[in-house]
Amino acid sequence: MSNAPFADRLKNMSGNVIREILKLIQQPDMISFGGGMPSADAFPMAEVKEIMAEITSTLDTSILQYSSSEGYVPLREFLCHWLKKKGINVTLDEVLIISGSQQGIDLTAKAFLNVSDKVIVENPTYLAALQIFKTYEAQFAIAQVDEEGININSLKEALEKDTDRNKLIYLVPTFQNPTGLTMSKERRQQVMELVKNYDITVVEDDPYGSLNYTDEEIPALKAFDKTGQVIYLGSFSKIISPGLRVGYVVASKEIINKLVIGKQATDVHTSNLSQVIVYEFCKRGLLEPHIDKIRVAYKEKRDLMLKYMTEYFPKEINWTIPAGGLFIWAELPAGVSSVDLLKEAIKEKVAFIPGNSFFASGGGENTMRLNFSNASHEEIKVGIEKLGRVVSKFLEVK
Amino acid sequence: MSNAPFADRLKNMSGNVIREILKLIQQPDMISFGGGMPSADAFPMAEVKEIMAEITSTLDTSILQYSSSEGYVPLREFLCHWLKKKGINVTLDEVLIISGSQQGIDLTAKAFLNVSDKVIVENPTYLAALQIFKTYEAQFAIAQVDEEGININSLKEALEKDTDRNKLIYLVPTFQNPTGLTMSKERRQQVMELVKNYDITVVEDDPYGSLNYTDEEIPALKAFDKTGQVIYLGSFSKIISPGLRVGYVVASKEIINKLVIGKQATDVHTSNLSQVIVYEFCKRGLLEPHIDKIRVAYKEKRDLMLKYMTEYFPKEINWTIPAGGLFIWAELPAGVSSVDLLKEAIKEKVAFIPGNSFFASGGGENTMRLNFSNASHEEIKVGIEKLGRVVSKFLEVK
Repeated sequence: MSNAPFADRLKNMSGNVIREILKLIQQPDMISFGGGMPSADAFPMAEVKEIMAEITSTLDTSILQYSSSEGYVPLREFLCHWLKKKGINVTLDEVLIISGSQQGIDLTAKAFLNVSDKVIVENPTYLAALQIFKTYEAQFAIAQVDEEGININSLKEALEKDTDRNKLIYLVPTFQNPTGLTMSKERRQQVMELVKNYDITVVEDDPYGSLNYTDEEIPALKAFDKTGQVIYLGSFSKIISPGLRVGYVVASKEIINKLVIGKQATDVHTSNLSQVIVYEFCKRGLLEPHIDKIRVAYKEKRDLMLKYMTEYFPKEINWTIPAGGLFIWAELPAGVSSVDLLKEAIKEKVAFIPGNSFFASGGGENTMRLNFSNASHEEIKVGIEKLGRVVSKFLEVK
Repeated sequence: MSNAPFADRLKNMSGNVIREILKLIQQPDMISFGGGMPSADAFPMAEVKEIMAEITSTLDTSILQYSSSEGYVPLREFLCHWLKKKGINVTLDEVLIISGSQQGIDLTAKAFLNVSDKVIVENPTYLAALQIFKTYEAQFAIAQVDEEGININSLKEALEKDTDRNKLIYLVPTFQNPTGLTMSKERRQQVMELVKNYDITVVEDDPYGSLNYTDEEIPALKAFDKTGQVIYLGSFSKIISPGLRVGYVVASKEIINKLVIGKQATDVHTSNLSQVIVYEFCKRGLLEPHIDKIRVAYKEKRDLMLKYMTEYFPKEINWTIPAGGLFIWAELPAGVSSVDLLKEAIKEKVAFIPGNSFFASGGGENTMRLNFSNASHEEIKVGIEKLGRVVSKFLEVK
């Protein structure tokens, strides 16, 4: 027989919706505002090549051998130092290198969640996180969001209900995916004041924090964590390269030890070569200048997309103005389906991600996520103009 | 509060026993027969450096970008071709690149196991696999092993009992970890004849299959799989480099699709650079000559260790003569604890892995696993002589 009886966790679960849509729209003449991909011209290609050329001559065999699950010590040391900028003060044994920050969500879920445990999430939130929690058969509790971030009363309500089952709060406080919104500093303090009264762990997912298009520095939620309740997930994917698959977790030693058990049980450790390249990049002082460079480039693209949206989108559509990150979040009039809109848009060779998948418990059918980092200036102009035409026509027919 | 309520799966679970022992014995003058590490001088360092130097000049930015979860197409194509040698005939969509073959065990467990589902395992078996299955709160059913591999009657008995809960059979048919033993070709046929009558999936873990020290080629279990029931896990860790973290899964398209969902939810895809280096190594025709070279080198080490064991170990000890792989498995007299022996051995600066951790349901306190690939000839001589002295003294005192 070949009737493979898969686990309950996979019931009703297809692949990552975004990755599936991205496959669909992989056509050379398609303008895609779909994925959350960095722009190819934002990669530090010359620097990485130079590093590769240099390390090639000095590498010893340890690069090819097994290494520690906790990660490359010089890179962890660099992070202890670098994270002070975000208000995070930690020691070496509170830092774990992982294969992209998404692995941190998976390892956290594995360490914390029994079947039917609850994860409190913002609405909407990062859809891959929702999918990961679903693979652990978690339930969701929704906390509402206002313009300063997660709403404290709503969060408190979620925390008070079903206390025994509440295990994690998952937040993307800075330049959120998908909305682009950022939790204020005061709200961060309030969240940490509140959660210290509960046996709950907060996952702060921060892949975009360094892509700040303002002069205002906002400390990480982790910076206000006096109780060791925050698991901070960081990534080099958006500021150096996603293809290298290097991210990190910052958490209490107790939690890191549990995550390491999960790490040992999956990929044992992150690719040595990837870790060394990322470390060499940081050590040479290339990280900050490179971040500054892409901040300028992405800010330009954000501004351009906003400008053309104002110009070409019909008045019935609203959108966020993100202070950083990769995404603009738009709302069509109520009752209008962005999934249907996408079908029309694809015919015109322009694509985005429908927003409904970012909602843990349904809704959001009239929302859409637009990525501005990956397309060129010309593509942004042409694509938004096209999309404006498609939307206008689509709303007329409705 | 910081009283993190971890998931049930982590109860009574410490880290990987081997990795913990390896940390303990990390002293410069320690002779370790502990880990399953390739020898540093068996790494194709010059070739990898040459590849890195060459690809550095030709790389384009796609190496730094996100790529497909399924893996680098040229590498998957190479595997379709190369695996024919092992009797495995598959198409591209039946091959998935993963970050070391161990990730394949984790993804399989994630795709198949509900809490309390059963995994049928050999006794003893690879301890990291046992740990992974435990993180999914699986139960174990034990099938006995004889000199030709897993015992068919014992396997049948396990399959007939608790049928609804039986989900996976986990096997390391070739040069098994920890025993070094290999399932005969006839037994492979019998196993596949038997399992086709059940809704069960077989995991064939084959990290050592290419490290064959005989002239006899044994086809993979997967070669006899007419029903798409076998998930074959392969690795480049022992034949090129573990530090690059590149392995692969071969399975039916239906199963691969489910594993991809899990892969998307953890590290999204395997490091591009690692995949390209492994592919370039294969493409240049370096793989087979390199395997031949390490087969000669490891066979020499195996023979040397066996020779010194015969010379220095007391007569009460028995051991396997592996036809390939990395390990010799030894049995002390009944009632003698190899954990206690290890404590004495460490004082004399020689180490091995006690065998009890490889048993899913207890037992094996008198067994030990000796790795012969990592130590030098001189270390094998000195270490086995020392260990012989420690064992002899230890048995006298008992």
